[in-house]
Amino acid sequence: MKISRPTKKCYREYQDQMRKIADVKNALAVLQWDQETYLPAKGAGFRGQQMATLSELAHRIFTERKTGRLLDELAGREDLDEKEKRNIALTLEDYTKQKKYTAAFVRLLSQTTSDSFHAWVQARKENSFSVFEEHLRKLVDLKRRETDILGYSLHPYDALLNEFEKGCTVSMLDKTFDSVRGPLKNLLDRIVSKKQVDDSFLLQHFPRQAQWDFGLSLIRDLGFDTQAGRQDISEHPFTTSFNTRDVRITTRIEENDFGSMTWSCIHEAGHALYEQGLPESEYGLPAGEYASLGIHESQSRLWENSVGRSLAFWKFEYPRLLQYFPGQLGPVPVEQFYQGINKVEPSLIRTQSDELTYHFHVMIRYELEKSLIQGSLDVHDIPAYWNEHYKKYLGLTVPDDRSGCLQDVHWSHGSFGYFPTYSLGSFFAAQLFAAAGQAIPNLGKALGEGNLEPLHNWLRQRVYQYGRMFTSEELVQKASGEVLNVGYFMQYLLDKYQKIYQF
Amino acid sequence: MKISRPTKKCYREYQDQMRKIADVKNALAVLQWDQETYLPAKGAGFRGQQMATLSELAHRIFTERKTGRLLDELAGREDLDEKEKRNIALTLEDYTKQKKYTAAFVRLLSQTTSDSFHAWVQARKENSFSVFEEHLRKLVDLKRRETDILGYSLHPYDALLNEFEKGCTVSMLDKTFDSVRGPLKNLLDRIVSKKQVDDSFLLQHFPRQAQWDFGLSLIRDLGFDTQAGRQDISEHPFTTSFNTRDVRITTRIEENDFGSMTWSCIHEAGHALYEQGLPESEYGLPAGEYASLGIHESQSRLWENSVGRSLAFWKFEYPRLLQYFPGQLGPVPVEQFYQGINKVEPSLIRTQSDELTYHFHVMIRYELEKSLIQGSLDVHDIPAYWNEHYKKYLGLTVPDDRSGCLQDVHWSHGSFGYFPTYSLGSFFAAQLFAAAGQAIPNLGKALGEGNLEPLHNWLRQRVYQYGRMFTSEELVQKASGEVLNVGYFMQYLLDKYQKIYQF
Repeated sequence: MKISRPTKKCYREYQDQMRKIADVKNALAVLQWDQETYLPAKGAGFRGQQMATLSELAHRIFTERKTGRLLDELAGREDLDEKEKRNIALTLEDYTKQKKYTAAFVRLLSQTTSDSFHAWVQARKENSFSVFEEHLRKLVDLKRRETDILGYSLHPYDALLNEFEKGCTVSMLDKTFDSVRGPLKNLLDRIVSKKQVDDSFLLQHFPRQAQWDFGLSLIRDLGFDTQAGRQDISEHPFTTSFNTRDVRITTRIEENDFGSMTWSCIHEAGHALYEQGLPESEYGLPAGEYASLGIHESQSRLWENSVGRSLAFWKFEYPRLLQYFPGQLGPVPVEQFYQGINKVEPSLIRTQSDELTYHFHVMIRYELEKSLIQGSLDVHDIPAYWNEHYKKYLGLTVPDDRSGCLQDVHWSHGSFGYFPTYSLGSFFAAQLFAAAGQAIPNLGKALGEGNLEPLHNWLRQRVYQYGRMFTSEELVQKASGEVLNVGYFMQYLLDKYQKIYQF
Repeated sequence: MKISRPTKKCYREYQDQMRKIADVKNALAVLQWDQETYLPAKGAGFRGQQMATLSELAHRIFTERKTGRLLDELAGREDLDEKEKRNIALTLEDYTKQKKYTAAFVRLLSQTTSDSFHAWVQARKENSFSVFEEHLRKLVDLKRRETDILGYSLHPYDALLNEFEKGCTVSMLDKTFDSVRGPLKNLLDRIVSKKQVDDSFLLQHFPRQAQWDFGLSLIRDLGFDTQAGRQDISEHPFTTSFNTRDVRITTRIEENDFGSMTWSCIHEAGHALYEQGLPESEYGLPAGEYASLGIHESQSRLWENSVGRSLAFWKFEYPRLLQYFPGQLGPVPVEQFYQGINKVEPSLIRTQSDELTYHFHVMIRYELEKSLIQGSLDVHDIPAYWNEHYKKYLGLTVPDDRSGCLQDVHWSHGSFGYFPTYSLGSFFAAQLFAAAGQAIPNLGKALGEGNLEPLHNWLRQRVYQYGRMFTSEELVQKASGEVLNVGYFMQYLLDKYQKIYQF
């Protein structure tokens, strides 16, 4: 007869094992952060190799027999509490999935993405997709192999979507996007028929150092703890977290476009607040991880748009901003500033687009990726596909690859199935912010006084504290009392633009 | 009968295994670099844990059965070339040594040093040794346990010395230091009896940004490849290398002391030139590693002193320096500059001391460490011991712990047995530079023209290319035709100071 070991002891061993794996993954994240901020040019090759080794190691330790044995031992134990049970169940799910990958495949994928990243940087420099094409082809082939490894029932792209947003499928996304495509187009048409707002004051010269200083002060105002994180400069802004006490964001500064840095700071700070707010004691376990990419994006969008593009928030923040740029913004009243920062206009660059047309950028990439992964679109034909669809949906002529299909870093990271979570994030954000508005008396007044604590508190209670205990669908339902309802997002847009564009 | 596998195949497997281990160690080095440059304050705890996990992993992979089996298979194979044989022999030596450590000990040591580092930073802030004392006691206890693990025949400190300088012993160091202590003291006495040179021009206000810019231009002039490395700011300047194409140095800037940054830049650049010059194809193998810490230090000292404090070099570099600080240094002729930067005067801080009194700093630490490791000095008594010996050897009263026993980072890293290599480095440097002067026609003239290529070439041929194939003793003998002879160092000092102090 096998004598079973005490649950407490087993669970502690499981925790230790998971924390070690997290340590390796977080070391890998440090190397990635460094790669995009401070790595010297010639260091790229070895760095790729070093990251591949860490990827392979994290995979190797997670899938070693010890992990499986501990999970077997703990599964079904009744003297675990709810959170512990859920940790075990989710880890078992991850374990079963990871066991499908060979170490060689993990290493190959990591090495290929690292090479691709550098090829993408080079391709952007040379403004030529062809420099990136062969690397991307290799990656797409690998991702297609990955869909077979992971398995799927209806569409191969489902396997990749599921990696970022558990339970998300082509069928669900098709339905969601179909339900917003028409209304968004109608709203856009109404807006472009009206008098355009003036945002030319954002395009004056804003010196680099003053932007940097304001950006730091802004993220502090939002509640980003600079003792538990930092901000740096990178080509493409991003957030990364090595643990709740070391969460790093990056931004970029364009001296002739004040908005570029400002809303990237707010956006990434939103991600960072979520990471800094996850339960620290659950480091390395599912309960200490973010729920899904869609939920992550809902946090950045909520701050970037619901707060960061609201008149209420700028009533508080604008006087502070004026201290940095009295010459440039002194003549601009806050109401005019508010209108300018909410200007709607079809444009080429996703990260700089407005809240409405943004979703056309995502829908184009979504359709493109589906076709790539399905095999109905060849990598070589991406620029043509891209340019055709930007014409069709946004009425724009794409002048070159840099402002076209080379603009986003994601593919070079092997992230296919990622873009849809950006739209989901916006939809979730509108729904969560509406629920917060219901729950918090005078939320608008608080924002206008720079008092963000009630909102922080609500998010901590309703989102942060749960880590990955619930899927995005469950979490949103729990927090707002309703499953995903894009009506909140459409209503939010309508309320805002009706006032600004006066229809 | 066991059929032996082809040598080439085995050797390739061995290479792969060693490269993976190097990847983990270098990832750990990235985390350490980050810890001392950019880590947010609250991130210290988790970072220590993450580094401990990587240390443990590197150890675990190196000591796993696979490594031993490969080494067994390859040892004694006659169809390996000389370099390959040496790689195998040295790796076997390392393997045998590493097998003596348990994974738990490696982890404990890494975690303890990381905690100690933060305690040391805090202790310096509070200017109080007592904040550091208990951490240091834990570390000393661990290091004493380590001497038992490693084994030694005469003195426990030998076991630690051997880690940094293979073959180095208390008996050898006692002899070496005994032979220089008297002559150095005599030389110092003669100098202090002469008229002191003026270096007050170094202590004007030199703005931070201009110092930073000059520092970067200076290290480029020395041949540091900024595409294969970078310079940052840290509390204590250091060099770290993740591979030959990513070698990082740090410096610190004091606005009222121009020398502090300048010679730290040259010093670290000397280390970095060595790392950038190691054979890239031997990454992860002994042939791709530096020979010893003494040899490493010889490279930094050679550039810092033999070149960086020579009149010849500044005849070239001084006009460039004047472009950054015309107001401060315009009135100072290069000959006066040369005298000022070679001023000899007993002082409290090792890293800011002159070339002569420097070795008293080392000898004090050497004697102190010997006693600590032997158990004849208690950690609590370090400040008293320190202050007493600074009085005795340098005639100085130590006003506080920050300018006393808290000044160096090394102990917080667990580096006992490290300091003596600084003196060995100076001795090796003088001997190597003398040999280079013999081999290169008109070396002084080349330096005066800013032509450092002949010296670089000589170092590449005589030092860099050999990696860790030879011990420091063998390497110096091979490069200079002679075993370590401190006479070169004494002669170098005598030649310089006789002219400057006119005796």
